[in-house]
Amino acid sequence: MLQRVEAVAGYTTYIDLIRPLILDKQIVSTGMTKEVQRVESAIQLALEGTSCAIVSSGDPGIYAMAGLVFETCSAKNIKILPRSEQVANMPKDSEIIYVEIVPGIPALSAGASLLGAPLTHDFAVVSLSDLLTPWEIIEKRLEAAARADFVIVLYNPKSKKRTWQLEKAQHILLAHRDQNTPVGIVTRAMRDSQNVDVITLENLHRAEVNMQTTVFIGSSASLQYADYMYTPRGYAGKYNIGKV
Amino acid sequence: MLQRVEAVAGYTTYIDLIRPLILDKQIVSTGMTKEVQRVESAIQLALEGTSCAIVSSGDPGIYAMAGLVFETCSAKNIKILPRSEQVANMPKDSEIIYVEIVPGIPALSAGASLLGAPLTHDFAVVSLSDLLTPWEIIEKRLEAAARADFVIVLYNPKSKKRTWQLEKAQHILLAHRDQNTPVGIVTRAMRDSQNVDVITLENLHRAEVNMQTTVFIGSSASLQYADYMYTPRGYAGKYNIGKV
Repeated sequence: MLQRVEAVAGYTTYIDLIRPLILDKQIVSTGMTKEVQRVESAIQLALEGTSCAIVSSGDPGIYAMAGLVFETCSAKNIKILPRSEQVANMPKDSEIIYVEIVPGIPALSAGASLLGAPLTHDFAVVSLSDLLTPWEIIEKRLEAAARADFVIVLYNPKSKKRTWQLEKAQHILLAHRDQNTPVGIVTRAMRDSQNVDVITLENLHRAEVNMQTTVFIGSSASLQYADYMYTPRGYAGKYNIGKV
Repeated sequence: MLQRVEAVAGYTTYIDLIRPLILDKQIVSTGMTKEVQRVESAIQLALEGTSCAIVSSGDPGIYAMAGLVFETCSAKNIKILPRSEQVANMPKDSEIIYVEIVPGIPALSAGASLLGAPLTHDFAVVSLSDLLTPWEIIEKRLEAAARADFVIVLYNPKSKKRTWQLEKAQHILLAHRDQNTPVGIVTRAMRDSQNVDVITLENLHRAEVNMQTTVFIGSSASLQYADYMYTPRGYAGKYNIGKV
């Protein structure tokens, strides 16, 4: 995919990670909070006939850039068609872009694989960032997921400016879950200075987390085994259903 | 990974998909309901000093085989260490196995990429299979996820023997969500005879689904755009927070 395009747009940090692969490409690189401009630039290039990839870390469809392409095109009335319908030497059309979304390995998969197997049963994924979502909605989701005994994956647990959300989440979870519930903390999964730790829910407020951390809160069925954390596939043991 | 191991264990269908890559390997292939035996055989091989890969489709950590390795080792008191700690020519130890879990692209990511961008905000993942989980728990989770306005991903929506669960789930969801909520149906993502469709919640009971289908129920914020489905990143528009 990257080989085929003429331009690449992305957050500077991610562009730097793939720099050797894109030496001959036009680069549209912007900082952390410039997602909207970055996507608009990429769409503009595409409308002008320059193929452009937008890169994210993990999976571009999970808390990442794919949604913004649709938001932007919808707002500007730009038609989206699958790339498979694009034919060679097509006259360029300033109102259509051809899109292909290439799925990746999301942080929840990469992190889970390092922790053991925390996600082999139902789970809920919640971002603790209240920049674009009111905290009441986030709290309502945490509460619902905790009550219904989902394993819970937390994205964006803490940033330099957002410091209280994780501890607040811990309080909500402790109202429904044992203090010894295993909690997995994975920072910079599969990258330099990766860090993986299994702690308990009562110690979550002491964990070192940042914007590159994914947090995995066990369900009532999740267990720790040596340095690993896993969730049994079902309630077979508990309900004596027999193993099949 | 596959190149390095001496044996490969997996469900017959998946073994067939990778057959050309594993011609020189010992194969431990069993049918659909033989997961426990398959994992036990793989662990037994490892204990005897034969390296063995267990293959799943999608991500091995999401509703798949990784958990069963931990369940089995825990039940049999077999110690698990990370493969990175294994050294060459180590004397074999009948009580330790060295494990590496290789994450993959889960069906939720592959399906989302084909639908557009349904998972760019909080979501919950629920399996409708009540073989190992009592239906009351599944229902409680659907209810909680629906109330808290999560996008909901349904795994295992229907099998030849389990035919009523999806329609029951639809009823639960309709109590909390508009009948025109976009619903994505993806069957055999990225494989031969892939099928992708965006319908509405009121028509979910008519959708053609099977064990290779993943269903994506939009949140109240999810939208359909042309043949695509997406969820805006936040509530920026709704709450006039401004685009950052």
